[in-house]
Amino acid sequence: MEIKTPIPTFDDVKEARVRIKDYAIKTPVLTSEQINAIAESEIYFKCENFQKVGAFKYRGASNAVLSLSERELEKGVATHSSGNHAQALALAARNVGAAAYVVMPNNSLKVKKEAVAGYGAKIYYCEPSLEARERNLGKVIERTGATFIHPYDNFNVVCGQGTAALELFEQAPKLDALIVPVGGGGLLGGSLISAKAVSPETKVIAAEPEGADDAYRSLEAGEIIPSVNPQTVADGLLTSLSELTFEIIKSKVSRIVTVGDAAIIQAMKLIWERMKIIVEPSAAITLGLLLENKIDLTDKKIGAILSGGNVDLDNLPRG
Amino acid sequence: MEIKTPIPTFDDVKEARVRIKDYAIKTPVLTSEQINAIAESEIYFKCENFQKVGAFKYRGASNAVLSLSERELEKGVATHSSGNHAQALALAARNVGAAAYVVMPNNSLKVKKEAVAGYGAKIYYCEPSLEARERNLGKVIERTGATFIHPYDNFNVVCGQGTAALELFEQAPKLDALIVPVGGGGLLGGSLISAKAVSPETKVIAAEPEGADDAYRSLEAGEIIPSVNPQTVADGLLTSLSELTFEIIKSKVSRIVTVGDAAIIQAMKLIWERMKIIVEPSAAITLGLLLENKIDLTDKKIGAILSGGNVDLDNLPRG
Repeated sequence: MEIKTPIPTFDDVKEARVRIKDYAIKTPVLTSEQINAIAESEIYFKCENFQKVGAFKYRGASNAVLSLSERELEKGVATHSSGNHAQALALAARNVGAAAYVVMPNNSLKVKKEAVAGYGAKIYYCEPSLEARERNLGKVIERTGATFIHPYDNFNVVCGQGTAALELFEQAPKLDALIVPVGGGGLLGGSLISAKAVSPETKVIAAEPEGADDAYRSLEAGEIIPSVNPQTVADGLLTSLSELTFEIIKSKVSRIVTVGDAAIIQAMKLIWERMKIIVEPSAAITLGLLLENKIDLTDKKIGAILSGGNVDLDNLPRG
Repeated sequence: MEIKTPIPTFDDVKEARVRIKDYAIKTPVLTSEQINAIAESEIYFKCENFQKVGAFKYRGASNAVLSLSERELEKGVATHSSGNHAQALALAARNVGAAAYVVMPNNSLKVKKEAVAGYGAKIYYCEPSLEARERNLGKVIERTGATFIHPYDNFNVVCGQGTAALELFEQAPKLDALIVPVGGGGLLGGSLISAKAVSPETKVIAAEPEGADDAYRSLEAGEIIPSVNPQTVADGLLTSLSELTFEIIKSKVSRIVTVGDAAIIQAMKLIWERMKIIVEPSAAITLGLLLENKIDLTDKKIGAILSGGNVDLDNLPRG
């Protein structure tokens, strides 16, 4: 018998907000007259690049860690990740004095390895395949008894991610549309739960890289189509949806729109130049969607979640 | 008989603040736990990189333009500049429907030319020498009757620049020290006037590039030593002090500290990576000063003016 993860309700997101209040930053919402003029709309950017560890992932990881019992915390938390979730979980665990075990592919960027180690996590390196990552994680969990915190296929993680949109609706009310990047669907899932409860008239539109359009195809097909060999500059959006996130997204999302890498890079450069803030490609995709004009959002009031700002400054993508 | 520009008082800075209130942004003050830990002090960054045109220069240019009479405005304003002042003056003039004439060296960056033109200024190109710039500016003024707005040797410009520190002292009270970059001395001069009036216990320390240390040497010599063939990555800090700014600085500054390019670049990278905001080298020098540790500011509460964020993203300085 399969035990499905229950779908979070808006009450769960509100509880997450209270739980992480003293840990996560209430990030600012910024606007740019110049970018509004270019996009011909009024855009409210929710700056999760200013979140701790530089990404929204810290919200979900914090909520997951803070939801554990004393006894679970004694044994620590574990995950496999090469990206922002690893850092987020490491810091969230350190905050409460819990151990964090992170399985990372041995080809992870040095800057990411150092960041995870800097937050005090124990790192286990493995071959860069999902199979190796899962196998090694299994061993670690068996030995330590740590709780696995999946980056998005996790009830409490999704609730935590939903707090960003919840804040945004208070900071910029009456949005016609909210644009959210979609990779594994944790941020999108949480945002949808908040949006439907707080601002049901707002259309929630997901932005997905053309070269990693598994969520778009999953929605078309009515079942999860895994991401196979995704190719995009938006390295935070490579993963496939999970049962949990697909379940939320399929019933609540207004539309998934794919965005090409050229528009993503153009958007990233615009945000850097005009707003003087650093965002990663996976965040800039929200503006990229508007630049490509595949759907008409002219003269609308639009929220856009800038999901993170972790880029390798010595190796920037070029347009 | 030489007619000296009078020295602005704090009342003049307060008037400037009222004058530019509806035009300039009250920029935020940001802090970073990570950078505080590295610098071992508590730093309050005044983010003039978020100012209009991406630099504090907009404050002074706006105050200067808004101080002109109807009759003067009819004839427009003029300057020579290859940098942020040109953009600032162009936008400040456009705001009130006045013409702006800008003499630019023909080797100015394309991005700067486009920005100035984008704000509707009329550009005159000349050879890249101070002599050619001044000669061409003279001709333009003769023909148009426009008022010359010098980037820093101007009473109203200095008053406008002083409004940034004035805001900072309200946003972050009781600073032990305030670090301000020094090039021509407009920002430093204005900051000193505000500091002495609002927070006389705060030490104002100027940060100057080692390879463009004319202000440091001028203070030592007790007279203006011009900047000759300056070499630094901080391209906004190449100019020499003027009579006006030297007069203010020599009586009020606590100390001028020179900073090497390596520390400037290291500081810029730290701010980009940890704070996720874009600052130019001339702004990052304030943190660079702390990193070099030439003076002990450990455990102090420090203000630092991040003067601007205009960098050529295709041609970043590397450490």
